[in-house]
Amino acid sequence: MKKIAVLPGDGIGPEIVAEAVKVLNALDLPLQLDWADVGGKAYETSGHPLPPATLKLAQEADAVLFGAVGDWKYDKLERSLRPEQAILGLRKALGLFANFRPAICYEQLTHASSLKPELVAGLDILLIRELTGDIYFGQPRGRRTAVDGHFPGADEAFDTMRYSRPEIERIAHVAFQAAQKRNKRLTSVDKANVLETSQFWKDIVIEVHKSYPDVELDHMYVDNAAMQLVKAPKKFDVVVTGNMFGDILSDEAAMLTGSIGMLPSASLDANNKGLYEPSHGSAPDIAGKGIANPLATILSAAMMLKFSLSLPDAAARIEAAVESVLAQGLRTADIWSEGTSKVTTIEMGDAVVKAI
Amino acid sequence: MKKIAVLPGDGIGPEIVAEAVKVLNALDLPLQLDWADVGGKAYETSGHPLPPATLKLAQEADAVLFGAVGDWKYDKLERSLRPEQAILGLRKALGLFANFRPAICYEQLTHASSLKPELVAGLDILLIRELTGDIYFGQPRGRRTAVDGHFPGADEAFDTMRYSRPEIERIAHVAFQAAQKRNKRLTSVDKANVLETSQFWKDIVIEVHKSYPDVELDHMYVDNAAMQLVKAPKKFDVVVTGNMFGDILSDEAAMLTGSIGMLPSASLDANNKGLYEPSHGSAPDIAGKGIANPLATILSAAMMLKFSLSLPDAAARIEAAVESVLAQGLRTADIWSEGTSKVTTIEMGDAVVKAI
Ligand SMILES: CC(C)[C@H](C(=O)O)[C@@H](O)C(=O)O
Ligand SMILES: CC(C)[C@H](C(=O)O)[C@@H](O)C(=O)O
Repeated sequence: MKKIAVLPGDGIGPEIVAEAVKVLNALDLPLQLDWADVGGKAYETSGHPLPPATLKLAQEADAVLFGAVGDWKYDKLERSLRPEQAILGLRKALGLFANFRPAICYEQLTHASSLKPELVAGLDILLIRELTGDIYFGQPRGRRTAVDGHFPGADEAFDTMRYSRPEIERIAHVAFQAAQKRNKRLTSVDKANVLETSQFWKDIVIEVHKSYPDVELDHMYVDNAAMQLVKAPKKFDVVVTGNMFGDILSDEAAMLTGSIGMLPSASLDANNKGLYEPSHGSAPDIAGKGIANPLATILSAAMMLKFSLSLPDAAARIEAAVESVLAQGLRTADIWSEGTSKVTTIEMGDAVVKAI
Repeated sequence: MKKIAVLPGDGIGPEIVAEAVKVLNALDLPLQLDWADVGGKAYETSGHPLPPATLKLAQEADAVLFGAVGDWKYDKLERSLRPEQAILGLRKALGLFANFRPAICYEQLTHASSLKPELVAGLDILLIRELTGDIYFGQPRGRRTAVDGHFPGADEAFDTMRYSRPEIERIAHVAFQAAQKRNKRLTSVDKANVLETSQFWKDIVIEVHKSYPDVELDHMYVDNAAMQLVKAPKKFDVVVTGNMFGDILSDEAAMLTGSIGMLPSASLDANNKGLYEPSHGSAPDIAGKGIANPLATILSAAMMLKFSLSLPDAAARIEAAVESVLAQGLRTADIWSEGTSKVTTIEMGDAVVKAI
């Protein structure tokens, strides 16, 4: 019996997670599902976005199925109580340093991309983002009086970007190994022309490359990567980058597929325990309307079965079922187009279950 | 007599700057042009990418016309001697804190964009990037032994992101004033859900907004901005952001116009003295072939006349001439398409001169 912590969260989180759970149940696997509040919801019920009970549940589980967190209504809270702290806290506490963000353009959704169809048709990039280091967690940070710079004596705020050698080594190994299973091309993205942290990153990626001579490695500055993703996304295979640049580039890449409502993600620790969540956010504007697309979450559940629970066959059944509902022409509002049938969140989940 | 420091630099820099100079000369203005080496070229002639004589020339000039710097062949140099240090050094020494990066889709080049024509036709965004602060120049930075984090005792590299109150205030004023001259909408981009520096940035932008009640202000996280630029770029009017995020977003925005060979940029100090350069890079792969597009540099010269030299009429003549050569169907290779006439760098410069 494997234990799964189910954390629906805010906005559309509960609706989309409910459909993913329905799909998991339909597979009749030896899974025990335990629910807990997280994000704004948890703040309301217990005063903190990541209450001790939720963290404990996640720590004791074999995997975490996560919906989404965040809502405008929590904007006025002090930072440590805002919903996003839950996801940052889980990443840190569980050591989820390797974030897999596939950017895939689904054949049936090519037209939904902002990009011209020929630029995105068949697109399949894997972006690997380091998730527990960098300026996200670096100390010191805060407010102080500037001692140098342009305005010594003025108030300033500051953060610390940092990466240690083992942090870079382990994410580089993950990335090279992922590239080996794909087209054997890895692009490491940095800003080594400006940042010490990036130069160190680049040097270590080059060292780790020696253990993977079958993988072709190149380096790209982050500004250029942001451009090349728009210009010729299909030139990328696997991309590896730090937490901050990865935040930006993975969202850019996801959006240009046109399939953002479809994209799952996995955040893994050193033993393949992971947290699985859709690439999109909590979309408070459409929450409760029953129109959100549950497929990214359903596909996240499939990733969970494959990566953390060693159930690749069950994962494949979910993926095939999703292909099949798309082939049937079923679409939630976000991916609907002339000639396809518009369905609700629940109808989409039901259709996937039926296809299984 | 106004003095202009002309710094062609590396790669295609000399070719494109030569055409811009030709255009300036054709206007018969009271300008004195003085040349100096910069970047890799300067490293070769005098051992440093920004030699004292070049810096002095730039400091004494009323404006700087800059080509581009960088070439793969300098990649092995230590960072302080690499070509990019010249541009960083000039920004810092001249106090060029306000970087104007228009992202305009030229009507005749709509088809050249990666994006569907309806998403970019008529696009006209002004991205304002703070250029002398942030993690680009923040101290301390370097290598050290980690004292905390995931691997205490390990080697690590680090950089400091920082902004002081007056740095944020002055760029915010520039941005609100720019918005007042356009459609009165300003988007401030940050990562306030994670970074102290961003929260400080956001708080101060909100304060400065009180002096510009006619401008509509909104805030966007940088990851979302990277997505929205792809999804619906025309929703933006003026965008203001820090040095690091601005580096990434301005390049992304420039690329999605499809007109990157056409886009000028200005980097201004507090008194409107500025450095003007094309938004694109030094393109060493096509250097010396005579095929580079000089229009971004020619339009940068126009910006220079307008912003730093109070010669708006002369600037308008250049802009009209560029419109006219495009209307004539003249295109360098980067923007060429079926049915238009392919011209060389020099032919394009000549055509602009003729149109003046
Ligand atoms: C909510 C936020 C802190 C988070 C991040 O920046 O990592 C989100 O944008 C993400 O990418 O998962
Ligand atoms: C060359 C590099 C240091 C520079 C920067 O990052 O600012 C460039 O990318 C730019 O945007 O002008």
